[in-house]
Amino acid sequence: MDIVEEIEKANKKAFDIMNRGKAILKDFDYAGKVIPGMKDNTILHAGPPIAYADMIDPMKAAVQGALMFEGKADSLEEADRMARSGDFDFRPCHEMNSVGPMAGIITPGMYVAVVENPEFGNKTFCNLHEGRGKILRFGATGKEVLDRLKWMNENLGPGLKEVVRKKPVDLKNIAAEAVQMGDELHQRYRASSLLFLSNISDNLLELPNGREIFKFIAEKEQFFLNLAMPAMKALADPADGIKYSTLVTRMTRNGVNFGIQVSGLKGKWFTGKVEVPVGLFFTGFSQKDAAGDFGDSAIMETLGLGGLASAAAPSVTRFVGGSVKDAIRATELGYKITYGESKDILIPALNFRGVPLGIDILKVNETNILPTINTGIAHKQAGIGQIGGGISHPPLKAFNDALKDYAATYGI
Amino acid sequence: MDIVEEIEKANKKAFDIMNRGKAILKDFDYAGKVIPGMKDNTILHAGPPIAYADMIDPMKAAVQGALMFEGKADSLEEADRMARSGDFDFRPCHEMNSVGPMAGIITPGMYVAVVENPEFGNKTFCNLHEGRGKILRFGATGKEVLDRLKWMNENLGPGLKEVVRKKPVDLKNIAAEAVQMGDELHQRYRASSLLFLSNISDNLLELPNGREIFKFIAEKEQFFLNLAMPAMKALADPADGIKYSTLVTRMTRNGVNFGIQVSGLKGKWFTGKVEVPVGLFFTGFSQKDAAGDFGDSAIMETLGLGGLASAAAPSVTRFVGGSVKDAIRATELGYKITYGESKDILIPALNFRGVPLGIDILKVNETNILPTINTGIAHKQAGIGQIGGGISHPPLKAFNDALKDYAATYGI
Repeated sequence: MDIVEEIEKANKKAFDIMNRGKAILKDFDYAGKVIPGMKDNTILHAGPPIAYADMIDPMKAAVQGALMFEGKADSLEEADRMARSGDFDFRPCHEMNSVGPMAGIITPGMYVAVVENPEFGNKTFCNLHEGRGKILRFGATGKEVLDRLKWMNENLGPGLKEVVRKKPVDLKNIAAEAVQMGDELHQRYRASSLLFLSNISDNLLELPNGREIFKFIAEKEQFFLNLAMPAMKALADPADGIKYSTLVTRMTRNGVNFGIQVSGLKGKWFTGKVEVPVGLFFTGFSQKDAAGDFGDSAIMETLGLGGLASAAAPSVTRFVGGSVKDAIRATELGYKITYGESKDILIPALNFRGVPLGIDILKVNETNILPTINTGIAHKQAGIGQIGGGISHPPLKAFNDALKDYAATYGI
Repeated sequence: MDIVEEIEKANKKAFDIMNRGKAILKDFDYAGKVIPGMKDNTILHAGPPIAYADMIDPMKAAVQGALMFEGKADSLEEADRMARSGDFDFRPCHEMNSVGPMAGIITPGMYVAVVENPEFGNKTFCNLHEGRGKILRFGATGKEVLDRLKWMNENLGPGLKEVVRKKPVDLKNIAAEAVQMGDELHQRYRASSLLFLSNISDNLLELPNGREIFKFIAEKEQFFLNLAMPAMKALADPADGIKYSTLVTRMTRNGVNFGIQVSGLKGKWFTGKVEVPVGLFFTGFSQKDAAGDFGDSAIMETLGLGGLASAAAPSVTRFVGGSVKDAIRATELGYKITYGESKDILIPALNFRGVPLGIDILKVNETNILPTINTGIAHKQAGIGQIGGGISHPPLKAFNDALKDYAATYGI
C-alpha cells in the first residue's frame, strides 16, 4: 500500500470507531478512587500541559479553590504557595481519561461521572456541573462556591451514583435526540438537560434527598455539559493511536495554548496561542474583559457538535449575532474538513444529514478552514465568571505543526 | 370606507388580537362546575354539530364510555340507548368555550383545564390527557380506560389544580419555546411536554401523590396536547365576531364533517366532508382501517401551528414520508393564505420568521390552497385507538360556502 492508501485505511478505521461507539453513563464516584493513576497530589486541568505559574488567573484561582475544597489549604494564599511548591503533579485532564469544562480542575476528593464505551471498554471521567454564575470552573472560590461543591459531593454525586448504577443512561442517545431539538451541545443544552433529568427522574425521586437533587439539576440549563463532554471523549479515545490516521482526537485549551492531538501521532500535543473568543457580552462587560479561550469542552467540536453542529441550533448563532445562514455555513465548513458524517447524530434542517465527524489535519491544512468552536466567555479576572458567549477557533499553527510532525514521523 | 378597507381594518384587528393574546393555565376543575352553561345532561363533542346517531363509531363509543364513567349507565348498550333517548344535549365543544382532541367528549363530571387570556378575560376548557393506546378519546371504553379516567379525576386533576393555582403557567411561552425545539404542536409535543413538566415539577412534587402524578405526566409524550389546544382557543376566541373580518377562528372535525367558523360570520358553521387522513400506519394497520378525520385539535393549525408550522419540525413530516423541503413547503403555503405572522412563535429554520397566523377565507378562495393539518389517525372501529399519523386538509367547500355567506351577509 502506498501512503495515500495507508492514510485512507487508517482514517476509515478511526472514523468508524468514533462513529459506532456508545457512551453509557454508568457510575459516579471520587476522582481519586476511579481515575486510573490519580494520586493524592494529582491536580487535573483543562487544555494541553501547563505549569501552575503559567496559568491564567481564573484557572489558578480554580486550583486554589480546589485545594481549599480538599481541605489541604485554609486560604487562597496558602493554596497558591502550595501550588507553586512543586508538591503537586499538574496533569491535563485529557491525559488521565478525563475532561473538565473551563478551568477543568479535578482533584482526588471531587465526585466525577464515569462514562463507558462498552464495545471498546474504555472509561472517561468528568467533574460535576455547578451551574452558572459564581462557580469554580470560572475561577470563583467564595464560600458559596465551596459550600456548593461540598453539597454536590455529599448529595448530587452519591445520589446520581445510586440512580445510574440502577439504570445506566445512554448519553449518545440523549445527545442525538437533543440535536433534533435545537441543542448544538456546546452552548445550548436545554433539550439534553431536560431529557437527561426526565430519564433519571423516576429512580432519582426514590432517594430521600431526591427532590433536592432533582431541583438542583432542573435549575441548570447546561447540566448535560459535564455529561456530554465525557461521552464524546469516550467515543474519541478508542480512535486515538491508529497508525497513519490523520484524524484529530482531541482539541482543548488552557487559556494560554490551544492543543490538538492526532490519532496517528499518539500522545503528542500540537499547540498555538488561544484566541480570545469573540461574541456577545452580558450587560456591563465587553470584549476587553474576556479571558483567552479555555476548557476541554472543544471535545464537543472534535466529535462534530458545538460549532460544527451550528445548523442544528440557529438560536445559538443568533445569540452571537449571526443568522441562520451563518449557522448552516459553520456546519458546511465542518463537512469540508472532516472525514465523514455521524450515523446517529443528525441535523433535521440539513435533511437529517449527520454532523461532520472526524476532523482531518490534511483537510485543514489543504483548505485552511478552521473548525468553529462555540464557547462560553469568562472574565479574565478570577471569580467573576461567565460574561458572554461567542465563537473561537483553534490556531492554524497547531494543524501546521501536526502535519510537519506527521511527515517526519511517517517519512513522507 | 369601501369594503376592501373595511375588511383590511377588521382583519388587522382580528389578527392583532390573536397575535398579542396570552394563554395562562390557571385552574383545573369539574367541567360541570366551570364551563358556563354546562348542565348535568350536556355532552360536548369535537367538531361541528352532529347528532349522536350520525357520529362515527369511535365517537359514539367515547360517548358511551363517558356515560359509564359518569355513573349514568352500567353498560355500553345502556349508554347507547340513553344517548339515543333525546335526554342528552349534545353540543360542539367549541360552542361551549371548550376543545377536546379526537372524539373530544367532555361530560360534567370530568376534570378540565381552565385557560385564561388575561387581557380579554375569556376562558377556555379542555379535558385531561390520557396518553396513547386504549383511551376514551379514540373510543376505547374498557375497564382500564375508565379506571384511568377515575384516577385522573381523583389525582391528576386535583393535583394540577393545586399546582397551577399556586403558580399559573404561561402556555404560549411554552409553545413558543417548544417550536424552537422541534415541536410543531399537533403531532409532536416532546419538548413542550418536558418544558411543562419541568415548569410545574417543584410544586407538583410537594403533593403527597406528587410523584405518582409526575410519573403519569412524564410517560406521556403528548401531554401538552390537551393544554396547547385550549391555549390556542383562548387566543382565537376574542378575535371571533369582528364585523367584516374574513379570518378563520375555528377549524374542527367530527369524523363526518369538517367545520370552520369565520370571525365576521359569528356562530355560523361552514362544513364539508372530512378527509380520511393519509399517512404512515403502525404495523398491522393500513389506510383502509383509518377513520375520517376527527377532533378539535385543528385549533392548532387555526393559530399557525401543526401543519402550518411544519418547517419547525421536519421530523414530523419525515414520519409521514416527506422531506425537509416538504416541511418547509407546508409552512410556505401557510403564508400564502394567512394575514400575517406570529410575533412570538418563531421558526428557527426560517430565520426566526413567525408561524403563519390568521387564515383568510379570501386568500384560500383565491389560491385554492388548503392548510395542511397534521393529525393522528384513528381506527374506524371503536376502541382500537391510534393506528398512525398523517396529514389531512379541510374541504374547499367549507371555504367556498363561507365566502358565499360572507357576500350575502355584507351585501357584496
